[in-house]
Amino acid sequence: MPTQPIHRHTRGVYIIAATPFTATGEVDDASTDRLVDFYLEHGVDGITILGIMGEANKLTEAEACAFASRVLRRVDGRVPVIVGVSGAGIDNLRRLAVFAMENGAAGVMVAPTPGPAVEDRIRHYFHQVCEALGPGVPVCLQDFPQVTGVPISAATILALTRECPEIVMLKHEDCPGLGKLSAVRAGSGTVETPRLSILCGNGGLYLPQELARGADGAMTGFAYPEMLVEVVARHAAGEIDRAEDIFDAYLPILRYEQQPGYGLAVRKAILHHRGVIADPRTRAPGPKLGPLDQAELLRLMARTDINVKELNHGS
Amino acid sequence: MPTQPIHRHTRGVYIIAATPFTATGEVDDASTDRLVDFYLEHGVDGITILGIMGEANKLTEAEACAFASRVLRRVDGRVPVIVGVSGAGIDNLRRLAVFAMENGAAGVMVAPTPGPAVEDRIRHYFHQVCEALGPGVPVCLQDFPQVTGVPISAATILALTRECPEIVMLKHEDCPGLGKLSAVRAGSGTVETPRLSILCGNGGLYLPQELARGADGAMTGFAYPEMLVEVVARHAAGEIDRAEDIFDAYLPILRYEQQPGYGLAVRKAILHHRGVIADPRTRAPGPKLGPLDQAELLRLMARTDINVKELNHGS
Amino acid sequence: MPTQPIHRHTRGVYIIAATPFTATGEVDDASTDRLVDFYLEHGVDGITILGIMGEANKLTEAEACAFASRVLRRVDGRVPVIVGVSGAGIDNLRRLAVFAMENGAAGVMVAPTPGPAVEDRIRHYFHQVCEALGPGVPVCLQDFPQVTGVPISAATILALTRECPEIVMLKHEDCPGLGKLSAVRAGSGTVETPRLSILCGNGGLYLPQELARGADGAMTGFAYPEMLVEVVARHAAGEIDRAEDIFDAYLPILRYEQQPGYGLAVRKAILHHRGVIADPRTRAPGPKLGPLDQAELLRLMARTDINVKELNHGS
Amino acid sequence: MPTQPIHRHTRGVYIIAATPFTATGEVDDASTDRLVDFYLEHGVDGITILGIMGEANKLTEAEACAFASRVLRRVDGRVPVIVGVSGAGIDNLRRLAVFAMENGAAGVMVAPTPGPAVEDRIRHYFHQVCEALGPGVPVCLQDFPQVTGVPISAATILALTRECPEIVMLKHEDCPGLGKLSAVRAGSGTVETPRLSILCGNGGLYLPQELARGADGAMTGFAYPEMLVEVVARHAAGEIDRAEDIFDAYLPILRYEQQPGYGLAVRKAILHHRGVIADPRTRAPGPKLGPLDQAELLRLMARTDINVKELNHGS
Repeated sequence: MPTQPIHRHTRGVYIIAATPFTATGEVDDASTDRLVDFYLEHGVDGITILGIMGEANKLTEAEACAFASRVLRRVDGRVPVIVGVSGAGIDNLRRLAVFAMENGAAGVMVAPTPGPAVEDRIRHYFHQVCEALGPGVPVCLQDFPQVTGVPISAATILALTRECPEIVMLKHEDCPGLGKLSAVRAGSGTVETPRLSILCGNGGLYLPQELARGADGAMTGFAYPEMLVEVVARHAAGEIDRAEDIFDAYLPILRYEQQPGYGLAVRKAILHHRGVIADPRTRAPGPKLGPLDQAELLRLMARTDINVKELNHGS
Repeated sequence: MPTQPIHRHTRGVYIIAATPFTATGEVDDASTDRLVDFYLEHGVDGITILGIMGEANKLTEAEACAFASRVLRRVDGRVPVIVGVSGAGIDNLRRLAVFAMENGAAGVMVAPTPGPAVEDRIRHYFHQVCEALGPGVPVCLQDFPQVTGVPISAATILALTRECPEIVMLKHEDCPGLGKLSAVRAGSGTVETPRLSILCGNGGLYLPQELARGADGAMTGFAYPEMLVEVVARHAAGEIDRAEDIFDAYLPILRYEQQPGYGLAVRKAILHHRGVIADPRTRAPGPKLGPLDQAELLRLMARTDINVKELNHGS
Repeated sequence: MPTQPIHRHTRGVYIIAATPFTATGEVDDASTDRLVDFYLEHGVDGITILGIMGEANKLTEAEACAFASRVLRRVDGRVPVIVGVSGAGIDNLRRLAVFAMENGAAGVMVAPTPGPAVEDRIRHYFHQVCEALGPGVPVCLQDFPQVTGVPISAATILALTRECPEIVMLKHEDCPGLGKLSAVRAGSGTVETPRLSILCGNGGLYLPQELARGADGAMTGFAYPEMLVEVVARHAAGEIDRAEDIFDAYLPILRYEQQPGYGLAVRKAILHHRGVIADPRTRAPGPKLGPLDQAELLRLMARTDINVKELNHGS
Repeated sequence: MPTQPIHRHTRGVYIIAATPFTATGEVDDASTDRLVDFYLEHGVDGITILGIMGEANKLTEAEACAFASRVLRRVDGRVPVIVGVSGAGIDNLRRLAVFAMENGAAGVMVAPTPGPAVEDRIRHYFHQVCEALGPGVPVCLQDFPQVTGVPISAATILALTRECPEIVMLKHEDCPGLGKLSAVRAGSGTVETPRLSILCGNGGLYLPQELARGADGAMTGFAYPEMLVEVVARHAAGEIDRAEDIFDAYLPILRYEQQPGYGLAVRKAILHHRGVIADPRTRAPGPKLGPLDQAELLRLMARTDINVKELNHGS
């Protein structure tokens, strides 16, 4: 069952889903179903799959399609699902996007391809992508220069917002990026430039500040989605301080998860310890936790539980 | 018909093959066959497919397998074929390598994955790869930091040569890299470290110097393979000056081809103008030549023809 | 008055000092004195000047020497002072180091020069540096690949520890870097490899974990040095949980400070708001805070004050 | 004696000068004078000092000023001299620029500072620089992303040309960069955008093509300036083929010089072998030639001499 496509006013928490693997390295269907249920039970407004966190570049096209199908069937239209389709070639990107949309996705996410960071190249690339996808496929532009190596200025994001009607959403995860977020927020939804939904990544590391600056929500894979959901909700309800108190209770483990290139292993370990996925492994070559890391993580998880109890007790 | 696997004393010219596409963007089988014939007619000692120049990252796994099959069938054991299997995930890498070897490949080529350039990470990666591939698959280590972003020291290459018996060949294309080439040549084939076959890339830009420093040949995609073949042959025959004269005659167009990220379009254009491939296109997003570039290239091709005629007349 | 040189067992908090400027852009001597007093009053065990945070690359050699002199005179031997001497040329580096040591510095800090990240180059560089400095100048090796672009493996750090007796300290700020810290800790102080003092940077973002893994303290510029001092002291006293509670109270503002390339402006703004430096400006081109950033920061400072009060009330 | 400032129609060969050092590492005044004479005798139209090739980042401010003074006095107004003033801080940049202009320089050269490659940052930086320098200082914008890490699009170069009247010249050395050169040529000298003088770097590797696309000349440090001068002159005289024949005769050694990060040592070695500078050393850490490299270079120099003789004999 398809849902409404993502659009320029989409709000809330779009959780970035991990891709669970079995002990023999196959995509784990049962864990996938449990993961979807877990996210939905914790109140997310949408799910984004096959992003960087989803290890999309280590899946074959067949695996990616099968995973997308399974998630979309399990979600069954309850929330919108965005499918990451970034890749080296536009033909592959288009084929996966078409598959996703035909199976009920609400939109696709695209990051710029590697290469010189000249902005006319980036702009040209998104024009090519949008032309290849055609008018029916809403696009979330992923701005994650720490991983892509390709920074994009606010001016270029706004130019693309004007030029490509398919681009309706920004996954904002430049860092430092608060000034850019304010610039995109101020520059879109004007007479010249259509509004852009802005959901924030980077594990949520600056979420209270981002919401205060006009972000529409979060799109990230923090392994305690309940925090993201509650912070966004409280903030929307005007309970700014309370939202930030909740955020702060989770911040020690959030900042621990937010270790570039390594955090994915932490996230999967937490999801595993919380009983959601059967095996925390990432596909090789990928990060993994040793015994010392495990003990460190379990200590942080225990401290998080205490923080959250105190928070609820105190409220 | 399978050939002898590549080994520690492999010599000569292994041409890097382009992947030809039709005007509608499919892999072009007829041009593939003609390209194989062209390379063989010009006397290459081996062919390497699905490298960076082969746009391997824009092919699906199915397309890569089909292309490898077709090339291997067309070559039919006349020369060894090396198959590039680099990719983000070792599972995918292994599956393609197994397919290639089962279909008659002589070895595989592997570049390090992106990530921090600490050499223990790189070393660990090649250990993982060699373990996944198992003992029967000879590996050519591709050292191309300008594209991979991952430099490797001579010391690490030599350590891997000792530690991983599957690594029998180095595709040398660091730049500047002449000192490194000498260091690897001197440090391999010793009591401690097995010999390593060294074939040189970078379009052949320093081929005479590389041969003088002990390289075993070239592995690059220069669109005039006859030059590579003759230079390597003359050098092996001790005709050092004549080899370099031949090289110099082609150098103006060689250095024009050797424009990073753009040269592939030049190579395909030359192969097209020489009647080998039907269409010079690269898959999007990829470089292409405008009218001014075309005119510039044709002028250089004409000057090359004159140089070659003078060379043969003068000899 | 000179102090004991830094050595292989140096422990505690070495604060990284900002370089204050006047409204007209000159080095501000009065603020420099106040800053030194502020750090000493808050109990730091040492001070590091002319690091990246000290905008050393925007000072002339004369300014750098004058600033080092002033700090050293003000400190007057009460704690050791380390002087950052990194730069493009070894001659300049040596001259500044000699000046610093003659004026009472306890050691110098050196980061690798930009260039290909091959570790033999890095190793060779530190050999050159140590030879140029001679035996009397203890060196702190700064490992900060996010800024230098040059990652260094634990194995290379340990090799340098064996080969260069002058290298007695590691400023650890790779990220993710916890595993590397454990590797260096385990690999130094052994039969083969001398002990290495390890002080941690990155704003202190993982300080509790780093101390648990055997770090000897912190070397970073967090604008609330009292937190660093107390966390390190409590941890040393075995009050692990209490140390982490204190850390967590400051974490929201710490993670806000820790925005790459921008955090310096935040730190200077906090030091300005705390009455330490007269003007928060950085030298152009450098980051600065707009009105929205200022409001955001003041809110975080106020929340930090509340956290700290609750912490002390609750204890 | 000052010369006419550089301007929007400046043409010809501006040689990039090396900075010669004595065997003990000091700037070598006598070799500096000989180098100036050598360049002038070979007919260059201008000289650019203190660029990347001039090892400017390894000189102190005092050394840079002394070197600039000496060169300017020796040139004595016979040709314009451009002084590289790039650096981390705008204060230092301005001070050196003021000194240079007061001592008779014809303009300054500025490259973007390192940092995220977003073009509004780059644009803002050049606005800051031009404002700091004031209206009397003509600026050559150096576009050399292979070294600076900061690519700039043709659109940004043209925007800066419109916005900053001080920017009158582009040192073009992006690679691949022929398309960009054509775009800047076509887009400047229009109704909206003032003309920009374009001089090309990269060792001259694509000089014939660049001249054909409308470049005004070369600005590079090739150690045979007579080639650059003659190629530019013949091309201007309409002898396109002859110009390219001359170029091709030097191409083998030119491409050998053009090894990133290493070529400086080659250039200095050639200048030394040609009797111009007393010592070929670069300041540490810097490249140097071993015995094998020396032999390789001498062979290429000898072959170049033969090529040039044949060229003149044949003409």
